[in-house]
Amino acid sequence: MMAGADLLCELMREYHRRGWVSGTGGGICRVVAPERLLVAPSGVHKERLAPEDFFVISTGDGRVLAVADDPGLVPSECTPVFRLIVRLRHAGSVLHSHALSAVLAGDTAIDGAVTISGLEMLKGIQGVAASDRHAVPVVQNTVREAELVDEVGLALGDDRYGSAYAVLVRDHGAYIWGRDVWEAKRHAEVYHYLFDALRERRS
Amino acid sequence: MMAGADLLCELMREYHRRGWVSGTGGGICRVVAPERLLVAPSGVHKERLAPEDFFVISTGDGRVLAVADDPGLVPSECTPVFRLIVRLRHAGSVLHSHALSAVLAGDTAIDGAVTISGLEMLKGIQGVAASDRHAVPVVQNTVREAELVDEVGLALGDDRYGSAYAVLVRDHGAYIWGRDVWEAKRHAEVYHYLFDALRERRS
Amino acid sequence: MMAGADLLCELMREYHRRGWVSGTGGGICRVVAPERLLVAPSGVHKERLAPEDFFVISTGDGRVLAVADDPGLVPSECTPVFRLIVRLRHAGSVLHSHALSAVLAGDTAIDGAVTISGLEMLKGIQGVAASDRHAVPVVQNTVREAELVDEVGLALGDDRYGSAYAVLVRDHGAYIWGRDVWEAKRHAEVYHYLFDALRERRS
Amino acid sequence: MMAGADLLCELMREYHRRGWVSGTGGGICRVVAPERLLVAPSGVHKERLAPEDFFVISTGDGRVLAVADDPGLVPSECTPVFRLIVRLRHAGSVLHSHALSAVLAGDTAIDGAVTISGLEMLKGIQGVAASDRHAVPVVQNTVREAELVDEVGLALGDDRYGSAYAVLVRDHGAYIWGRDVWEAKRHAEVYHYLFDALRERRS
Repeated sequence: MMAGADLLCELMREYHRRGWVSGTGGGICRVVAPERLLVAPSGVHKERLAPEDFFVISTGDGRVLAVADDPGLVPSECTPVFRLIVRLRHAGSVLHSHALSAVLAGDTAIDGAVTISGLEMLKGIQGVAASDRHAVPVVQNTVREAELVDEVGLALGDDRYGSAYAVLVRDHGAYIWGRDVWEAKRHAEVYHYLFDALRERRS
Repeated sequence: MMAGADLLCELMREYHRRGWVSGTGGGICRVVAPERLLVAPSGVHKERLAPEDFFVISTGDGRVLAVADDPGLVPSECTPVFRLIVRLRHAGSVLHSHALSAVLAGDTAIDGAVTISGLEMLKGIQGVAASDRHAVPVVQNTVREAELVDEVGLALGDDRYGSAYAVLVRDHGAYIWGRDVWEAKRHAEVYHYLFDALRERRS
Repeated sequence: MMAGADLLCELMREYHRRGWVSGTGGGICRVVAPERLLVAPSGVHKERLAPEDFFVISTGDGRVLAVADDPGLVPSECTPVFRLIVRLRHAGSVLHSHALSAVLAGDTAIDGAVTISGLEMLKGIQGVAASDRHAVPVVQNTVREAELVDEVGLALGDDRYGSAYAVLVRDHGAYIWGRDVWEAKRHAEVYHYLFDALRERRS
Repeated sequence: MMAGADLLCELMREYHRRGWVSGTGGGICRVVAPERLLVAPSGVHKERLAPEDFFVISTGDGRVLAVADDPGLVPSECTPVFRLIVRLRHAGSVLHSHALSAVLAGDTAIDGAVTISGLEMLKGIQGVAASDRHAVPVVQNTVREAELVDEVGLALGDDRYGSAYAVLVRDHGAYIWGRDVWEAKRHAEVYHYLFDALRERRS
């Protein structure tokens, strides 16, 4: 029942090399069947994930439908946010990145968003043109998970961010998604590039 | 008929690792026979290219002479610019890089060019001496492909840029070429080093 | 008797790639049995360590209980500091990093400490919350090893640093530890991220 | 007769990954017998060197004692400087690095030298203490090879640089050596770290 986890393991090795999921941080998920979300475990070294470490979670009510082989594992803390993004944006896969570049991008937020323009790389985001001014919401970091779900939910419901495939969380990182694993990977590479560009062009 | 694609696949894996072709961006081509240009497909993860994903395009009129195995693939959007550079500069291979360092170099353009001097690494460009002042054209980014071809064509026809093996595209990246794949690779490494040097010496 | 060294060799290859143990610098150890500390040798290229290069040292009195196969090797110069941290903090594994980011973090010390706050990544440190102000001691670099042991001992005994799993050594690097190898690895990745963040947010 | 070249090939792959020998630049050599110097070829992609690409050169008079298999190859342009360093400093191996960090370090020269202090990493240089002020000569870049040999010769004969295992060449890079391949590798990692530290601490 863990079909599809191999690719997530491979991507997490690559993302760890890039510094996006350091220190057991970050997370990843993908929809493997209607209402069935394959979710990585919490608090493990993400470059060492194996398919049998994953959980299957009901997108709708969050029930655990299949557990990891190791009884010591629990699903990612990101799971409620993952489920929200899957439901509200029809995402097929979501990455939670702890990249420092995402934190630094969030530091530049004005009125709860960063706006990116003047970069061809914007075309790498589904539906976005290189000439667009692309607004990405930046929500406050919260101590309690439920609060973060509320904040992300508000951002996703805000018309200003209708074209965004990412939400930045201040002092924390970013959620980045796509309609499937490949689009989520493309968006992850594009948004991290855009975060780097924000920093470089500011200095 | 895809002979010669193996090396391009290997180089794209390396260029992806370096951040030059992130987010399915960038492209690569090589001449495999007179008038026959081997071209990577558009919009795929460039580190995962396989030889059967390539197209053969007529350098002269742009006709597709051989298609990729996967009917869902289309040739790189860079193809018209690739063909132009091959024709006007007798290039044997061209890389289209989306490196952030190329974008940042383009940001420093004065009168449509960046001029690089005082670096031994300039010797790595065919025909250029370390003591030269080396001018690289910087063209505007355009929404429509046809306009970019026009702009690159003007730059390549400008005597001031006769020694350049690269064209920077503002907010976008660079085209870098050589008489064969190995010279194009050498030039790619040299120009990205020069772009990094521009940034470091400016700050 | 060198059981458990394989993983340390693997981690040192990774840490060398990251620039944390360059130029034969840095060191690593782990507790393999009560009072028995597995310690890497001094002054060797750390990415080329093999299990037979390790020593077993008595945590209590520092006696060498088992030697490396190569009679030319000697235990890491860090051994007295390693033993101290194991005893005072019940560490199961300690990394000595020479990362430049640790040196630069130490440069910003005020009153013998750097204080880190406003970063979710702090949660990656055992017992620390993202909302904490986390103080890491910064001790002076010393010529003689015995003096460094004294300084680190004072820092570890200081209540202000009770939550720290790292000690910065000015102009030198850092000691980072955890209750076992996996926690030490997590803490190593977290603290290096925090050191990078200090630099980036300052500039 | 190319014994000992395997390790140089491996190191050049690693140095290429680090950006020290980009664009076919840089070079490496080692003494394989009295008066016999194994030298890499000029102008090839350094990460793709094979043992049969190397030359054996007489340290004394520079004669070619054994040639590479490929008749199109010629010995590194660095060979006269390599021979000089081997003779004057009894080096067993020399690296010529084109790292941008070496160029940027050279930019900060005062009176023909950079002086590095206040870094434990200095201990990684044979005979140097962490508390030393370590002076590294910076010579002017020259168009003609013979002039560079003269300049490096003057620097190596200057008492102020008696403890240096590196010479910086302005706008160009560095020569770094050791009594054997392993010490040269250690010194290469140490000096590049020191060059990075100069840049970071200046900004």
